[in-house]
Amino acid sequence: MTRRALLIGIGPGGPDQLTVEAVHALNEVDVFLVADKEAEAGRAGTGDLVALREEICRRHITGDGYRVVTVPDPPRDRAPATDRVYGAEVRDWHAARARAYARAVVEHTRPGNTVGFLVWGDPSLYDSTIRVVEQIRTVGGVDLDYRVIPGVSSVQLLAARHRLVLNRIGGPVTVTTGRRLAADVASGADNLVVMLDGGLACADLDGDAWDLWWGANLGTEHEELVAGRLGEVLDAVRAARERARAARGWVMDTYLLRRAAAD
Amino acid sequence: MTRRALLIGIGPGGPDQLTVEAVHALNEVDVFLVADKEAEAGRAGTGDLVALREEICRRHITGDGYRVVTVPDPPRDRAPATDRVYGAEVRDWHAARARAYARAVVEHTRPGNTVGFLVWGDPSLYDSTIRVVEQIRTVGGVDLDYRVIPGVSSVQLLAARHRLVLNRIGGPVTVTTGRRLAADVASGADNLVVMLDGGLACADLDGDAWDLWWGANLGTEHEELVAGRLGEVLDAVRAARERARAARGWVMDTYLLRRAAAD
Repeated sequence: MTRRALLIGIGPGGPDQLTVEAVHALNEVDVFLVADKEAEAGRAGTGDLVALREEICRRHITGDGYRVVTVPDPPRDRAPATDRVYGAEVRDWHAARARAYARAVVEHTRPGNTVGFLVWGDPSLYDSTIRVVEQIRTVGGVDLDYRVIPGVSSVQLLAARHRLVLNRIGGPVTVTTGRRLAADVASGADNLVVMLDGGLACADLDGDAWDLWWGANLGTEHEELVAGRLGEVLDAVRAARERARAARGWVMDTYLLRRAAAD
Repeated sequence: MTRRALLIGIGPGGPDQLTVEAVHALNEVDVFLVADKEAEAGRAGTGDLVALREEICRRHITGDGYRVVTVPDPPRDRAPATDRVYGAEVRDWHAARARAYARAVVEHTRPGNTVGFLVWGDPSLYDSTIRVVEQIRTVGGVDLDYRVIPGVSSVQLLAARHRLVLNRIGGPVTVTTGRRLAADVASGADNLVVMLDGGLACADLDGDAWDLWWGANLGTEHEELVAGRLGEVLDAVRAARERARAARGWVMDTYLLRRAAAD
């Protein structure tokens, strides 16, 4: 009675930034499950993510023996008050989404089928798909065996574009969020990758004390890159963010911050 | 007079764990430069890394219009006394290696040629290739334009195999080395990815206070995985390390350590 799921990391942007193993996995999928909000954007012809997903399927799947099923996305409060509320709210939302996905799996697939989830970047970093699939089993009660296929993350594309090694020689890298940046710097981190930062939290740090390597909409044709001493390049970053947003209707950025010193 | 170099991340193990973009890049290379120690291992028929590199080229390069040139690897003192000496020693060794590579580039390629460097995992994490290529230009004086193609790192394969999200919801991840682990834990890090740890530094932490997700020789057919409360699984990890070493003649491990608590 077991169904199988493949969680496939498809990389940070371009249609060729997924691995050959991921291409093989795509070709094993009977039914792809996608969130309804993405399907809506696709129907309107404006969703970059949907367009890229479709391009990846068109380019890399042999034959047309697969279906795409959209799953209604439960509503979500995006402005919680505190970190504690934030965590609880995310967990509630994951459970609601898991129940919706569990219904879709049972309705649209048979035992023995393979269900596919396409994950932007890599499923192991700031992505909820693994937790959702776990909950399709535990909350939704679906007998589902699953495997994760890793992908290149936007952090790695950022580093590649800047031709940057993320660590100093032998040194650590703190991967964190805009929300946590001030706390991590206060506790001594001096080499940080920042993700999920809609508000450019680095602008609150001492502009003379940090170097910045920044990128937005990486892997798209309107990718933006800026690097330099933080205080000297913040205006350029803000302008590049607005260009990216104007070109695509959305902006996703990530950056490396390193305390300025001899390497 | 410009030559071009491609630094190609080929992923953590299997021959299909590189991206489609990396496959395209492989096919643009005229001359691959590889360190002599790897070539020696290949001639002896025992070098897994060389065998995998050859399998990747055989499987993914169309035609045979490329050459492989081996570059003598300068000697290196692997037992320095302190962190400061360690950094200086690594930098000296990089410069010596850069001079050897610069000679090989000038001798074996023409301006306009494309030189290829295959990098295990991802070039942005604990890898010296970017620094070496920079120094081929600055120390070696070769006019070389270069591009980095990102790859999946062993950390991401570790996470995929354990079906693990590296971060707690909204929380940070400290990527560090065995050498630095104690210091990073002392400064408050409680969710750490540890690389380059030949000595299982986590064994010095409180075995009741940490959870461990560990893997060795990831992506090979003798891959080993262990997970559980640190103190309860250390013996299993040590046994698995020895199995991996016995099977392949070498062991490379990486792991996630997370302070045990409600997620």
